[in-house]
Amino acid sequence: MTNTDKTVIAFDADDTLWPNEHYFREGEQQIIKLLERYYPGEDLLDKLYQQEIKNLHVFGYGAKGFALSMIESLIELSDGKVTGQEIQQVIEIGKMIMSSPIELISGVTETIEALRGYPLMIITKGDLFDQESKIARSGLADNFKMIEIVSEKDDATYLRLLKKYHIAPENFWMVGNSLKSDILPVAHIGAHAVHIPHETTWVHEMVSDKHASAYNYHELSTISELPALIKREVEREIQKNRSVS
Amino acid sequence: MTNTDKTVIAFDADDTLWPNEHYFREGEQQIIKLLERYYPGEDLLDKLYQQEIKNLHVFGYGAKGFALSMIESLIELSDGKVTGQEIQQVIEIGKMIMSSPIELISGVTETIEALRGYPLMIITKGDLFDQESKIARSGLADNFKMIEIVSEKDDATYLRLLKKYHIAPENFWMVGNSLKSDILPVAHIGAHAVHIPHETTWVHEMVSDKHASAYNYHELSTISELPALIKREVEREIQKNRSVS
Repeated sequence: MTNTDKTVIAFDADDTLWPNEHYFREGEQQIIKLLERYYPGEDLLDKLYQQEIKNLHVFGYGAKGFALSMIESLIELSDGKVTGQEIQQVIEIGKMIMSSPIELISGVTETIEALRGYPLMIITKGDLFDQESKIARSGLADNFKMIEIVSEKDDATYLRLLKKYHIAPENFWMVGNSLKSDILPVAHIGAHAVHIPHETTWVHEMVSDKHASAYNYHELSTISELPALIKREVEREIQKNRSVS
Repeated sequence: MTNTDKTVIAFDADDTLWPNEHYFREGEQQIIKLLERYYPGEDLLDKLYQQEIKNLHVFGYGAKGFALSMIESLIELSDGKVTGQEIQQVIEIGKMIMSSPIELISGVTETIEALRGYPLMIITKGDLFDQESKIARSGLADNFKMIEIVSEKDDATYLRLLKKYHIAPENFWMVGNSLKSDILPVAHIGAHAVHIPHETTWVHEMVSDKHASAYNYHELSTISELPALIKREVEREIQKNRSVS
């Protein structure tokens, strides 16, 4: 059996297959507009972020935790003066994020089609209900042999999934937009990572260039370049194994 | 290979391995106290429930969706007069539910121990982050070969999991407190279901006796009776297969 037969290609979902982060950032802008009359400080955006991070260990990632954190910020930063109607607006923003239309990023359909010879996987982080709903609405579910929704994407998570599906790190490819969640842990466990930056990235997912440069991974500007990269790398691997044996 | 070798025993978690529902009902009582000064109607509890059900298709199950629904109810039923401080109390109730201590139901430890010869599984419904956190805090995780957190427990979910793990329905046992989620769909797909009622059951999880009586399942009063039931039933199955062959 050659390495081709064992190659598994996994995709992040949000901001890799479809845009997502911009809904949160747009929601945040609406919340800032609500808050400006109560809180004149220039550090409003940072205050909102701090509240989200403070709650992350209780709420985890996703739109419901986002909405609850924003409500807490609204209450705190308005000194409790916020109105019921304003809080209802925040809940509506959360619901808007959770039922936003799923539009595939350009090139995704063709890329999935070109790679259908491989077992494909989705590994996405966040709220279970929300992510399942998005995958269903994307119309892509049938293309993926494995779908995993996880609460955190770190070394331990990837190692657990590889063990669960009996995949050797050298046969595993992870494609995503977040250096912190999709790339560095994957490179760290000796698997292949392909970074495709997206225009909007949450500050929590950012890592310094210096930190990232210590890792070995591929960087593409669009997902359309993925099939050629995989083909070239898998063939090179086969060639290498032949010359060894 | 006998049937014993193939038997897989799956457990629901909330209100089967540890109490959970009562935290929600206690939270609800606190919210009713907050609301009574705004809304004098006798149908308050029903109003809260209706709001939860209305939001279920956007929020799914779990404490975060519960908190958001309760906040919406507070705003609506108070005609927007609710204060920021009162809404903060609802968020605190949600956080309390999400970080409540996990105390195992009496007999759980011994039952798990007695059944450790079988591959054990947890199948639980709700919020991914919340459920993972509870399983971790329970200290039981290492006893379970498979852990599945799902957004809904219906025929399709059980069929998908059985297919995923290559388990035949006749070798699959599901143990839980909810007729709607743990018992009827499992009986319906031809697997074994063991109902262990818990003192508190959410009205959404209830089914009529008439509806339930159309299904064939086991009923125990405590989890401690489970090992004897499984032993008896699995041995009977082996006996039956021997007399056939």
